[in-house]
Amino acid sequence: MSSSDEEESMPSDYEIAQSADPVPIWDLLEPWDLGNEDLQYYGEYKAKVEHHAVERLREDAEDRANNLVLVTGMTPTPLGEGKTVTTVGLGQTLDHIGEDAMIAIREPSLGPVFGVKGGAAGGGYSQVLPMEDINLHFTGDLHALTAAHNLVAAMLDAKVSQGNELNVDVNDVAWPRALDMNDRALRETVVGLGGKSGGTPREDGFLLTAASEMMAVLCLASDLEDLKERIARIIVAYDDDGEPITVDDIEATGAVAMLLRDAIKPNIVQTIEGTPAFVHGGPFANIAHGTNSLIADKAAFGMGDYLVTEAGFGSDLGAEKFMNIVCRLGDMTPNAVVMVASVRALKYHGEDMWPADFDAIEEAGVDAIERGFENLDKHVENLQKFGVPVVVAVNRFPDDTDEEVQTVLDHCRDDLDVKAAESTVFGEGSEGGEELAERVVTEVENNDPEEFSPLYEDEASIKEKIETVATEIYGADGVTYTGTADEDIERMERLGFEEFPVCLSKTFHSLSDDASEKGAPEDWTLEVREIYPSAGAGFLVALTGDVLTMPGLPADPAAADMDIDEDGNISGLF
Amino acid sequence: MSSSDEEESMPSDYEIAQSADPVPIWDLLEPWDLGNEDLQYYGEYKAKVEHHAVERLREDAEDRANNLVLVTGMTPTPLGEGKTVTTVGLGQTLDHIGEDAMIAIREPSLGPVFGVKGGAAGGGYSQVLPMEDINLHFTGDLHALTAAHNLVAAMLDAKVSQGNELNVDVNDVAWPRALDMNDRALRETVVGLGGKSGGTPREDGFLLTAASEMMAVLCLASDLEDLKERIARIIVAYDDDGEPITVDDIEATGAVAMLLRDAIKPNIVQTIEGTPAFVHGGPFANIAHGTNSLIADKAAFGMGDYLVTEAGFGSDLGAEKFMNIVCRLGDMTPNAVVMVASVRALKYHGEDMWPADFDAIEEAGVDAIERGFENLDKHVENLQKFGVPVVVAVNRFPDDTDEEVQTVLDHCRDDLDVKAAESTVFGEGSEGGEELAERVVTEVENNDPEEFSPLYEDEASIKEKIETVATEIYGADGVTYTGTADEDIERMERLGFEEFPVCLSKTFHSLSDDASEKGAPEDWTLEVREIYPSAGAGFLVALTGDVLTMPGLPADPAAADMDIDEDGNISGLF
Repeated sequence: MSSSDEEESMPSDYEIAQSADPVPIWDLLEPWDLGNEDLQYYGEYKAKVEHHAVERLREDAEDRANNLVLVTGMTPTPLGEGKTVTTVGLGQTLDHIGEDAMIAIREPSLGPVFGVKGGAAGGGYSQVLPMEDINLHFTGDLHALTAAHNLVAAMLDAKVSQGNELNVDVNDVAWPRALDMNDRALRETVVGLGGKSGGTPREDGFLLTAASEMMAVLCLASDLEDLKERIARIIVAYDDDGEPITVDDIEATGAVAMLLRDAIKPNIVQTIEGTPAFVHGGPFANIAHGTNSLIADKAAFGMGDYLVTEAGFGSDLGAEKFMNIVCRLGDMTPNAVVMVASVRALKYHGEDMWPADFDAIEEAGVDAIERGFENLDKHVENLQKFGVPVVVAVNRFPDDTDEEVQTVLDHCRDDLDVKAAESTVFGEGSEGGEELAERVVTEVENNDPEEFSPLYEDEASIKEKIETVATEIYGADGVTYTGTADEDIERMERLGFEEFPVCLSKTFHSLSDDASEKGAPEDWTLEVREIYPSAGAGFLVALTGDVLTMPGLPADPAAADMDIDEDGNISGLF
Repeated sequence: MSSSDEEESMPSDYEIAQSADPVPIWDLLEPWDLGNEDLQYYGEYKAKVEHHAVERLREDAEDRANNLVLVTGMTPTPLGEGKTVTTVGLGQTLDHIGEDAMIAIREPSLGPVFGVKGGAAGGGYSQVLPMEDINLHFTGDLHALTAAHNLVAAMLDAKVSQGNELNVDVNDVAWPRALDMNDRALRETVVGLGGKSGGTPREDGFLLTAASEMMAVLCLASDLEDLKERIARIIVAYDDDGEPITVDDIEATGAVAMLLRDAIKPNIVQTIEGTPAFVHGGPFANIAHGTNSLIADKAAFGMGDYLVTEAGFGSDLGAEKFMNIVCRLGDMTPNAVVMVASVRALKYHGEDMWPADFDAIEEAGVDAIERGFENLDKHVENLQKFGVPVVVAVNRFPDDTDEEVQTVLDHCRDDLDVKAAESTVFGEGSEGGEELAERVVTEVENNDPEEFSPLYEDEASIKEKIETVATEIYGADGVTYTGTADEDIERMERLGFEEFPVCLSKTFHSLSDDASEKGAPEDWTLEVREIYPSAGAGFLVALTGDVLTMPGLPADPAAADMDIDEDGNISGLF
């Protein structure tokens, strides 16, 4: 999320992007011997890396340092605190101070672009280019996933309406449809109307494509073969006996994998300072794992000694899932974590407000920051439980005073005993990230990777896993199971999914399951109401509270202010 | 539609495509001075032509011959008679015999690819490459159109559910949603369920993206500015007073145009013999005009002396609309028409069968062919009414006998007095199209472009226009207006749309409005039940019979036989 709306003296993200002078992607990647046979171009500044080249980079990684730096954040305000900006800025700065660095981030979903004012390509002087392409159709991955998702839905409904030989229980369909568009009216629908020619009537709904298991599968697959195996396992419905019906059962595996043939190739672009960046995959960080593709990570390890990557929402969501799910499934070890904090978010917690009132936040004083530390402290403490060093990055906004920033830095040093640095990469690019980058390098060099471990073992029971995350990370006293949760767990065990890691879906507005609770809530119990398998991705999703998988447009959508002139120059896209 | 399923001794379309040796698109286009600044690459073999380069080609066209050859066909069997194959083959052959030729065809819709066994990139040795990319996501145009279409729908429903200040009548919404997927269950739906958070409940449905007015608009726009003006005019609903609500009224014009920024740039690829081909836009030929984009046509005129293009379905649909709508709106004059006939289709009409029985067709004799001539004759006669010379191409299938083919050629020469030639471009490439190409050149050289005229004037009344097409082209005795047709016409006149050309939506299985009637039906009346404006495209759609705008998957969809191996080689896509 850009903070351009805070900045009066600076040009907009798009203006900065337009004034940049990127080099053609073939020139950028020539030092890595990535040529015409290895790259699939999308215009002059975007490319996909072909499978054989990804394989070669994986081999190259064996001679590289494989230093993995994860960027995460405290519980953010609804505007975001600059995780992507910090990720891009840190990658650029590591290059700038003489380390070989690569960046890997998620690709934006088109839907939210039109809803709230905010793309997802970083911002200011720490963004990836071309930002307008990346925020719109990019290389078509989201569209390919939408098509793949909906082909499964169409083939399932065709099976139902043409004899239903698989005995699909139309009241136990686990595969809604998907669109990459914020469209509230599609949340809950009835389909199959209009008599026999319209198929079989049933309740249905639409997810945002980023929330589809297809996206999670793409981001966890190691190659095309693994992708196909994962697709085949996805459960789309249950039959009259409660037995799962998979994508393979409806004969869609091959066609779906074919639709994802290009989408699985990682996209590579450059930052505004010319650091190569993978932008690939973008699963939600609540019902899915919330980080870019493993394929991009593995390729990036072959191109630099450092990989800077980010995880969605606060550390209770994206970072926890990165440690407990992604590193487990992808056999990776993080060497340092950067925790993005902001004066704005600290005041938001200190004022204990809900919903966020940004005028009141601006007026709040240093005492509000100090009251807000309990949120930052809990996030830092959580990450330390994984055995990984933490560096706090205070992402400075234009209106932050020196005193405010220093208050945060002092707290980190004096009270938390963690390294911290101010970051002004938004306004200054790598010039604004040197202290942060140096602290990260120091921590990485002093780190013992053997100290890292996920918080639970594969063999722990499903309830033990859920309770570990709830108590250790969220700060809950325990967990209650309501709705179908207990029978869901029985079903998961019967189906042999008990060794899967758990993916808890929870609001990102609070460490707890209540969006209105700020700081570090205590004396509460997590309520889990439903558990279902993402059998293709390889984890169990536990639903808590109401998690929206299809956002809506606000009364005054960002789309209404967007335009393009006759020469193709766009406006209103930030 | 490929005829590969007829051919036992030949490799499949995909095998032929894989064995081809295309040149990189930058090398192919170098003779036209199209370089890195003029092209937006999509891999090594696909590119979009940038706006400034299209402008330059338009200027170059002033020094070119601008010979326009339209390929159309008789009433086809459900498998198609090879119009795209003939179009690609004729373009290649014109190059081969020393004329400078370009090709422009529609881009395939993803939906039908999974339903029936057939892509839409030509076939055999007359196909465009890379056929698998073109048949799947290609350069993302269909996906961009889907997003643009659904953004309008989401913004409209957001207006309705957030105060409805425009007084949208939810029972008079003219803008369904769209997907590029054959999905029967989405034909008729109810959306907006689930209480207040889900918006306002109402009936809705989904079109195939190719059937969206957005596609028609893209294909008729002359440039980005014109595109925006057309988008702004699109009518999405009516208010409580029956007044139209446009895309501009819901403030979606700029964002929608922005989404189509790349989609409006024409795509260029090459045929298997290296002739450049535009593949851009793909509107339906019943509720829309059924030909590729005008932008592609105009650019192509700057690159060759001949442009070979095709129109969808039989000449009663695509070609009639090309003459009466596209040439009118785009200020073009066709110099010759190629009418594709096949022994198979002639037997189908001669046997007067419905539905098609391909075993019976194979067994039918020369007498069936002769009885089927009445369909071919009517199509030829119709096209001659526009003042354009007609050449019949007999697209030879492997099992056709010499006697059968000669019977058709003799009939054309002796009974119709039109030029005709056998075409074997599917199996032989340009070697199989020489006679056809030479006859086309002769007709073009002898043609007087002044003789061309559409069948009705702008000033004719709506009913006069409809009746002209019905009686002159379809062979009806007259027209009856049922349903809302009469009040629709009043509304169109009141809204000032009476000078628009008319786009009749009718089955492609018959010259009449009854799919089961073969040959050249007489003594029947066309029933028009509804008329609505495509105000952005600039024509009125008149609905006759049931026209399906969202196909379904068959019981045994082609998708079930598709696959991709671990090296990315696909199978089952023809």
